[in-house]
Amino acid sequence: MKLASLKDGTRDGALAVVSRGLDRAVRAGPAAPTLQYALDHWTRVEPELRDLARRLEEGRAEGAEPFDPAAAMAPLPRAYQWADFSSYVTHVELVRRARGATLPDSFWNDPLVYQGAGDCNLGPTDPIPMMDPGWGLDFEGEVAAIVDDVPAGTDEQAAGRHIRLLMLVNDVTLRDLVPGELAKGFGFFQSKPQTAFSPVAVTPDELGDAWDGDRIHLPLLVRRGAEPFGRPNAGRDMVFGFRRMVAHVARTRPLAAGAIIGSGTVSNADRGVGSACIAERRAREMVEHGAPRTPFLAAGERVRIEMLDREGRSVFGAIDQVVTPVRPPQADPRSDRQSD
Amino acid sequence: MKLASLKDGTRDGALAVVSRGLDRAVRAGPAAPTLQYALDHWTRVEPELRDLARRLEEGRAEGAEPFDPAAAMAPLPRAYQWADFSSYVTHVELVRRARGATLPDSFWNDPLVYQGAGDCNLGPTDPIPMMDPGWGLDFEGEVAAIVDDVPAGTDEQAAGRHIRLLMLVNDVTLRDLVPGELAKGFGFFQSKPQTAFSPVAVTPDELGDAWDGDRIHLPLLVRRGAEPFGRPNAGRDMVFGFRRMVAHVARTRPLAAGAIIGSGTVSNADRGVGSACIAERRAREMVEHGAPRTPFLAAGERVRIEMLDREGRSVFGAIDQVVTPVRPPQADPRSDRQSD
Repeated sequence: MKLASLKDGTRDGALAVVSRGLDRAVRAGPAAPTLQYALDHWTRVEPELRDLARRLEEGRAEGAEPFDPAAAMAPLPRAYQWADFSSYVTHVELVRRARGATLPDSFWNDPLVYQGAGDCNLGPTDPIPMMDPGWGLDFEGEVAAIVDDVPAGTDEQAAGRHIRLLMLVNDVTLRDLVPGELAKGFGFFQSKPQTAFSPVAVTPDELGDAWDGDRIHLPLLVRRGAEPFGRPNAGRDMVFGFRRMVAHVARTRPLAAGAIIGSGTVSNADRGVGSACIAERRAREMVEHGAPRTPFLAAGERVRIEMLDREGRSVFGAIDQVVTPVRPPQADPRSDRQSD
Repeated sequence: MKLASLKDGTRDGALAVVSRGLDRAVRAGPAAPTLQYALDHWTRVEPELRDLARRLEEGRAEGAEPFDPAAAMAPLPRAYQWADFSSYVTHVELVRRARGATLPDSFWNDPLVYQGAGDCNLGPTDPIPMMDPGWGLDFEGEVAAIVDDVPAGTDEQAAGRHIRLLMLVNDVTLRDLVPGELAKGFGFFQSKPQTAFSPVAVTPDELGDAWDGDRIHLPLLVRRGAEPFGRPNAGRDMVFGFRRMVAHVARTRPLAAGAIIGSGTVSNADRGVGSACIAERRAREMVEHGAPRTPFLAAGERVRIEMLDREGRSVFGAIDQVVTPVRPPQADPRSDRQSD
């Protein structure tokens, strides 16, 4: 089952079931008006949504409409929890090596995570706002899971049963704000602006045997403009799987339904597959040539992140964004976002 | 105007207007079923809520009921954004001095903030869960603001106009998990479990001239069991006011309505007023005696955080919590939290 949140003028969008081929959609309606609502009541709502999905595939869903990714918000336009890991440890090792630092051995056993914020998520084709070209705008291609309610102290094995949906992420990062912020000791804040997500989130069964209950074994296709930038396999070199990540964040507190758990930049030790972010390529250049050569994103550039199944069909639809300069507000524009 | 979210079996509670004396409440009903809804539509909903508050004070509100803080959830039981600062820099300086570190000069000019998670907030009288007595359970008394939609790049002056509500916080912290987590470089995660909030959030006008548009000039009263632990004035030694904090977190991204901005542990340079967290007292003991003497919280201990106006009346009601041992789930208890 594939689910999207369609733009309808509200903050959370209208929950829709999308066809396997991503060409048609049907709104779930009052039974589950938003994806957050569906996750809040998953046990009751899931069978109804699956029934609707079946009817959609069979051409029997009343009110079906063409599906346009540009009409989709993030599956969760507002999320109460966004926890993003660095599960591809070879990526962390490489980035550290580039700045002359070594990787503590513990990083192979103890997951690294940062607490993000999901209050203003971007849709798959929303512009990437560029407020200041000097901030070092970068993309990060990731995979993510959405869980239902996870009690505090849930162990790794039980954690797997809480994974309800999977999706793709563009974890936009302002690289030149990172060093100063991390030096202060409390982690990222300004260096992690709004995050973008794929047009649909899918139940794990949509992946067939490419999902082993813990990892997605498919390449993540990342393009920068016309250039194929990377195609690392999300199931390879992922040191911590989703079960471990969920258990890690739930160690001392529960997770509320709708929490999003991200993998961190997908990265393979095999350099032939390229990279899912600019910073990683720059780190390789630093190690090889003593200096980075690839610039960060400029205004007007396009980033595309997608994943195809073994038959070449898009699983989640594409994140496809253009970097767009924006100015800070001149006056108080509060009324702009008031929805009534 | 004072607002509470009453326990009604739902995840977000029922929005209620509470009387100035905190003795009566009336549900806002369908016009504004939850506080998040009210914040999402503040311009439209605020006048209706203020009218209801007026009728409640005049004894003319239909359906008014006695207000019991134990029936209150956190004003926002789920929040999309919880950003917590360290605005009382003398506190940071003291804690650092205790571990032999100095404070970078920049900390007086550049606010320190960590990204928290607000998906599972605790109500004012909910137990503080103690999963492991070895984690060094501590309270932190803070003040916090709730904002409406804040556009990215909003400056300090404009930021003030977005502050809609104020409340108190118990930012529960697991001290013994902090050093290992901060050493990894990405900030807090497991060391910051669920946060608790006061019974009501109030519009700034409820504070009269104790609110200057940026700071709350009243002592925060913190008790540990029968002991008055601290009474630092929240308006004193607060290096960064709420306007600066809001502008800081909105520098590179918007904030969605309902974002919570916390001050960090309230702390005064005048040691005679005591402390709003155990760690600060332990830091003073470390500096004076070479070792901390005051233990962290044990099971059964009670923490009370409150603020009185100049006439001695409680402004926000009291956070009043008892430390309660809990066990991690034995089996998969998913169904426990499914609300239907």
